[in-house]
Amino acid sequence: MSRYRILIEYDGTGYAGWQRQEGPRSIQEAIETAIQAFCGQSARVYGAGRTDAGVHAHGQVAHFDLERDWPDDTIRDAINAHLMKAGHTVAILNAEHAQPDFDARFSALKRHYVYRFISRRAPLVLERNRAWWLTKPLNVDAMHEAAQFLVGRHDFTTFRSIQCQAKSPVRTLDRLDVVTNPADGTIELYATAQSFLHNQIRSFAGSLKLVGEGKWQPTDLAKALDARHRPACGPVAPPWGLYFMQVDY
Amino acid sequence: MSRYRILIEYDGTGYAGWQRQEGPRSIQEAIETAIQAFCGQSARVYGAGRTDAGVHAHGQVAHFDLERDWPDDTIRDAINAHLMKAGHTVAILNAEHAQPDFDARFSALKRHYVYRFISRRAPLVLERNRAWWLTKPLNVDAMHEAAQFLVGRHDFTTFRSIQCQAKSPVRTLDRLDVVTNPADGTIELYATAQSFLHNQIRSFAGSLKLVGEGKWQPTDLAKALDARHRPACGPVAPPWGLYFMQVDY
Repeated sequence: MSRYRILIEYDGTGYAGWQRQEGPRSIQEAIETAIQAFCGQSARVYGAGRTDAGVHAHGQVAHFDLERDWPDDTIRDAINAHLMKAGHTVAILNAEHAQPDFDARFSALKRHYVYRFISRRAPLVLERNRAWWLTKPLNVDAMHEAAQFLVGRHDFTTFRSIQCQAKSPVRTLDRLDVVTNPADGTIELYATAQSFLHNQIRSFAGSLKLVGEGKWQPTDLAKALDARHRPACGPVAPPWGLYFMQVDY
Repeated sequence: MSRYRILIEYDGTGYAGWQRQEGPRSIQEAIETAIQAFCGQSARVYGAGRTDAGVHAHGQVAHFDLERDWPDDTIRDAINAHLMKAGHTVAILNAEHAQPDFDARFSALKRHYVYRFISRRAPLVLERNRAWWLTKPLNVDAMHEAAQFLVGRHDFTTFRSIQCQAKSPVRTLDRLDVVTNPADGTIELYATAQSFLHNQIRSFAGSLKLVGEGKWQPTDLAKALDARHRPACGPVAPPWGLYFMQVDY
């Protein structure tokens, strides 16, 4: 038995999210089906993060076991060939052998996400489904200032979905930076933590949008955090602005 | 009568190109139809460049005349509303009044294009239809060196489509730079000239790809230029890597 670790990119538009489920197609199922088509084995693929419907990835990580020992490049190319044949917008960027105790989810030390906002009057076309379109200008400095209240170890009850299944609402947020990308003017929210609660980054992004528009002061974000109460959160930002960028092990 | 100048972004995937024609939908027709839906007037829209099917734009420019005088923002927002309603991937970034003698095509002093190459083993998914996917590594320095042979005033017969309708194959190329984008590793070809021949940049891109792969030496590009003979050109690069970026007036 060999354990493999894969690095995955996807355009999450039109998928039900990472996790396999009844009904709509998922990223996990797309990869499991491609593996079966390639080697005939029904392997379960375990991901580092269960991204929601419409969320994208540049660097999702997953692991799975196969009975046979295959060259790394064969794993990557064969899965990609079957993903493309099935018309999926999912690609394996890298495949490699992993230690038998490597677990994409539980071995993860840090997860990195980016949330993208584009503020302009014209609707998005080249960036459609790839960023949150906002027509009002955003005060990036105020957003960044507000974000700093969230960094550190906190009870994030305000910023998690009521469907969140984590036992504890306490998480340690390592980084939450809001910056303007000099290349194209996109506003980017960088978030890093060992793990996130359900809808946590999209809850941050929606609340930070209110700060950017001047509807909230930066200190209102600290008050929302202190409330430890879901209704104190701003709107949940749409999924298509969110990208799972990288996992550190 | 008022003349308007508009700045246009589009995802050219699924369009027959800029120019209105029988059959498949064009960018020009999409905008003309939106103008008619907005103000009831059948205006002809003249573009700065007739991009081919599948080619994108961040900064196409066009002009048109309307009987009524409208505020600039109304022009932009109303056309966008009708473009979105019709499901187009075309957006007006800016609209403004222009002098009666302004002509988007004939007043243009410089046109700027970018051609994007992505070299990696995995198929493109987030960049699908947005860059030329190449699986072999490219020597960017050799490509840039080769490109310099093309800069200046030359007979570009080798690098124009046999369907090109321009009277003369002579053009002055101001800039042809090949660089790696530090943000994402994409290889970008920057091309600037007052005007280009049909398929000129895609002919450059396809020939430069041969240099990048080591199949041609940089001096082979000079030889191809000197040949003034269409069959001396490399393959024509696919349209989805090309972006019309900007027009200077």
